[in-house]
Amino acid sequence: MANIIKPSILAGFMELLPQEQIQFNKIKDTVRKTYESFGFLPLDTPALEKADVLLAKGGGETEKQVYRFEKGKSDIAMRFDLTVPLARYVAQYYSDLSFPFRRYHIAKVYRGERNQRGRFREFYQADIDIIGDGKLSIINDAEIPAVIYEIFAKLEIGDFTIRINNRKILKGFYGSLGIEDSTYVLRTIDKMEKIGLDNVKLELKDLDLSDESIDSIIKFLQISGSNQEKIQALKDLNIDNEIFQEGLDEIEKVFAYLKLFKVPEKNTEFDLTIARGLDYYTGTVYETRLDAHPEIGSICSGGRYDNLASHYTKQSLPGVGISIGLTRLFFQLQEAGIIKAEKNTLTDLLIIPFPGFESYGIELLAELRAQGVQGFINGEAGKLGKKMKYADDLNIKYTILIGQDEVDQGKYMLRNMETGDQEALTSQEIIACIKNEKMI
Amino acid sequence: MANIIKPSILAGFMELLPQEQIQFNKIKDTVRKTYESFGFLPLDTPALEKADVLLAKGGGETEKQVYRFEKGKSDIAMRFDLTVPLARYVAQYYSDLSFPFRRYHIAKVYRGERNQRGRFREFYQADIDIIGDGKLSIINDAEIPAVIYEIFAKLEIGDFTIRINNRKILKGFYGSLGIEDSTYVLRTIDKMEKIGLDNVKLELKDLDLSDESIDSIIKFLQISGSNQEKIQALKDLNIDNEIFQEGLDEIEKVFAYLKLFKVPEKNTEFDLTIARGLDYYTGTVYETRLDAHPEIGSICSGGRYDNLASHYTKQSLPGVGISIGLTRLFFQLQEAGIIKAEKNTLTDLLIIPFPGFESYGIELLAELRAQGVQGFINGEAGKLGKKMKYADDLNIKYTILIGQDEVDQGKYMLRNMETGDQEALTSQEIIACIKNEKMI
Repeated sequence: MANIIKPSILAGFMELLPQEQIQFNKIKDTVRKTYESFGFLPLDTPALEKADVLLAKGGGETEKQVYRFEKGKSDIAMRFDLTVPLARYVAQYYSDLSFPFRRYHIAKVYRGERNQRGRFREFYQADIDIIGDGKLSIINDAEIPAVIYEIFAKLEIGDFTIRINNRKILKGFYGSLGIEDSTYVLRTIDKMEKIGLDNVKLELKDLDLSDESIDSIIKFLQISGSNQEKIQALKDLNIDNEIFQEGLDEIEKVFAYLKLFKVPEKNTEFDLTIARGLDYYTGTVYETRLDAHPEIGSICSGGRYDNLASHYTKQSLPGVGISIGLTRLFFQLQEAGIIKAEKNTLTDLLIIPFPGFESYGIELLAELRAQGVQGFINGEAGKLGKKMKYADDLNIKYTILIGQDEVDQGKYMLRNMETGDQEALTSQEIIACIKNEKMI
Repeated sequence: MANIIKPSILAGFMELLPQEQIQFNKIKDTVRKTYESFGFLPLDTPALEKADVLLAKGGGETEKQVYRFEKGKSDIAMRFDLTVPLARYVAQYYSDLSFPFRRYHIAKVYRGERNQRGRFREFYQADIDIIGDGKLSIINDAEIPAVIYEIFAKLEIGDFTIRINNRKILKGFYGSLGIEDSTYVLRTIDKMEKIGLDNVKLELKDLDLSDESIDSIIKFLQISGSNQEKIQALKDLNIDNEIFQEGLDEIEKVFAYLKLFKVPEKNTEFDLTIARGLDYYTGTVYETRLDAHPEIGSICSGGRYDNLASHYTKQSLPGVGISIGLTRLFFQLQEAGIIKAEKNTLTDLLIIPFPGFESYGIELLAELRAQGVQGFINGEAGKLGKKMKYADDLNIKYTILIGQDEVDQGKYMLRNMETGDQEALTSQEIIACIKNEKMI
């Protein structure tokens, strides 16, 4: 006999039991279907790329996490997000694509992160991006939250808010205070929720800002009211800065279009405190929170960028996109008790023949399947009780037993496994019953 | 400006343009839906596994092809098929699973093969397996071809034949000739189609077989007729060998059940020449060929095995399964001209507003989308002709232009992009038109 090796997987990798996997796939399918319904085209790039191409941008925390190795003469890296492969793809096939190029990509990415509960080294991202050739209308910035709204509404995971800001407003505002490089200020403000207003003030002081500037910043961050009221308040600041006014114009259009896209006001919030990273995004930015679970943080983020693929092409390719971290989201929804994977099934029917009646069982199965019933037969040796438990464990909705009586009468005992109801029915009655999900 | 790196991917990796990707996904979806309709449960294991676990079986050509590397203290290997991860999974979660455990798994696997046209280093496999706990009924051996029949019938890729054999018949037959280890004989016979009967005879001579034995083998391989006639011919051989008789009994049942599963006789063939590898399979074996394209070889293969997971558990886990190599299949279908990816789209409608009418466009879009129309708006700056070409390039079925007249009249010009027909319609008429796929 061979040596037995204990079966196990690497730490930091999610693996689900079938019931959970059905649930996960439902979420993934909803995301995919919604993306497709908005005209996003599917993409499926390799998980392995040339290291020098994938890491063209270089540097940063991410690069340390990349799974990179050699095979033969190839220096290979595993993708760590879906944005870099998109940039590479759009540059590579530029002349074959139609712009604005709208693509979705739902796939696993890989990061050799420090092992930590709720962090995964392999995880699904579900991205959409719209890439313009040279320029891209602001309408697209409003469409992205419309897509996201539809997805989270369908997923029924509770109330949520898509928080929207525009980096030009931030850049222009800080510019108007004489702060040319707002990187550190933004980084400090990003911590607002974690460390609170007073600590933000202290940290801003450390950045050598005048009391007057700090006051202005705090007032700016505390602008409140409806989205429209916030926009009006910003207008009332009368800031003479081109970038600021451009951002303000953009955010006004985004909220106006969002209304036309029929995204409810209560599901969006103009939030001046969010900035999303510090060098990639250049205009609209998004975060999405579950109202009842702020502790989860953003479940879906993205924004507008000026140039997707500057490492791969001289073409100017502005874009806007958003990403859902599906694996982490699923983990968090389970942890928070928002989704339960208990009663999932894809199967309508299990046929259980008595010994010697297997052929009749298969015949009936083929007849029912031909009319759209999803099911199979358990013709194993073994006791009836064990097979009923099997159907129960798999949450199969109906069972049919077949023996001499059933064959003689041409009627089969259909049992609703949830209610325990059962009734002797012809095959046609069974089909009607299963399709209508009720006993006759 | 950043250095420009030429965008490209590693050799041996398939990457598709969106039109092709839509086509590929249709095939993948058909496979998935059919698997699910037969009650197979989804599984999604990590692409990266512990090297010592994944390679527990060790040795062989495959191991050289494995992408294996270290990260931190982990010795990591990429999965090279979906069977070893299944074995590991079933052993690991044995007590959480219900047997027979029916799972499907459609995912990419990785093999650092020699670079060669039509061979891929990353490719999709689409597997089903049914795993028994200790034993497993022969009904399952008949269900597998029933699933495969349904898939290839739906895919409409031409006539195909599922060729079925049983290794016990081979083992028993060769055993009756006094050949205890039939490995070399089977390997020789496997080459029949490539090298022809005469060369097979010569090679068998080299194996030191008597002329009488070789004659028997040739006669055995040349048994012809319908599946039933072949079974009868084998019975008439009256071979006194237990394994032979067991195999004969199994194949007879498989073909009897296949008829009940409503798999047409013309799509199956009892083929004594196929053996499928030389140590893994122990009973029923399958290959599938496109009748008009024998040069493609088997597009779907598998069989029955005695013990799935002997490296991970002492539990006896017999199973039967089959695998479709989707990436290679797609490549071959394209090469053979059987599928064309030209006219694929997922989008019903593109709305094109004239400048200044973007808001009306979005409003109409939202109204149509709410009633199930799939589409989006092109509100970019630029000429109308360019936008019509955009819709055409993406194979979008309908376009709507919106300007002052349309807004005034509440009627929009719907254009069928394929026929060029167009008509001024209300939004409700547009919905009816798109849903029925015809102009009013």
